[in-house]
Amino acid sequence: MNTLEPQLQITIVTIIVTGVGIVLGTVVPAWVEGKAVLKALEGITRQPESANDLRTTLLISMALLESTAIYVLLVMLILLFANPLLDRFF
Amino acid sequence: MNTLEPQLQITIVTIIVTGVGIVLGTVVPAWVEGKAVLKALEGITRQPESANDLRTTLLISMALLESTAIYVLLVMLILLFANPLLDRFF
Amino acid sequence: MNTLEPQLQITIVTIIVTGVGIVLGTVVPAWVEGKAVLKALEGITRQPESANDLRTTLLISMALLESTAIYVLLVMLILLFANPLLDRFF
Repeated sequence: MNTLEPQLQITIVTIIVTGVGIVLGTVVPAWVEGKAVLKALEGITRQPESANDLRTTLLISMALLESTAIYVLLVMLILLFANPLLDRFF
Repeated sequence: MNTLEPQLQITIVTIIVTGVGIVLGTVVPAWVEGKAVLKALEGITRQPESANDLRTTLLISMALLESTAIYVLLVMLILLFANPLLDRFF
Repeated sequence: MNTLEPQLQITIVTIIVTGVGIVLGTVVPAWVEGKAVLKALEGITRQPESANDLRTTLLISMALLESTAIYVLLVMLILLFANPLLDRFF
């Protein structure tokens, strides 16, 4: 891609990296959150009297698990909207 | 792709990245949400008296699981409608 | 694809991405919704007195599962009808 002008190369690389990155970065959080939900539902079924404890623990845990997906989203938005390295080119 | 003009390259890359990205980004959330629904329905069958607890936990969890799909949708819509790097080309 | 004119390339890429994308994007939601229906019917058979709980949970869950398919449909319709990058070519 040496013959392309710099802005074009940067734009194409940014589009590909942000698109691929947000997809890959949300796969694992969604997967482990789903497994936590399964286990909590199973626990409520087996011990109905612990339902409140299980639900509270599940929701706090999911909020914390969600944070890794939010970090990925944050970096992707920075790459798109506030990449400080681009000042020289745009 | 060296002979293509810049706008054309960017347009084609954006179409492919958004189309492929939204498909891949919704697979895992849909899959784990579906497994959570199965587990909740199974739990209601085995412990009918816990139906309300199970349903409440299921619905809150699904809303949280949905959020990772929404992050992907957000980035895809930004790439289509509000990519700030495109100002120079379009 | 160097010899094709730009409009032709964009049209072909859009047709392929939207056609393939909507098919792949609806596979997983349809599959897990179907499995949820099977599980709910099985539960109603085993616990007829829980039929209302199972049906309510199933219908709300299916509406939520449907949402990931709707995200894919949304992006595909945008690519076809409202792709803002195409203004320059058509």
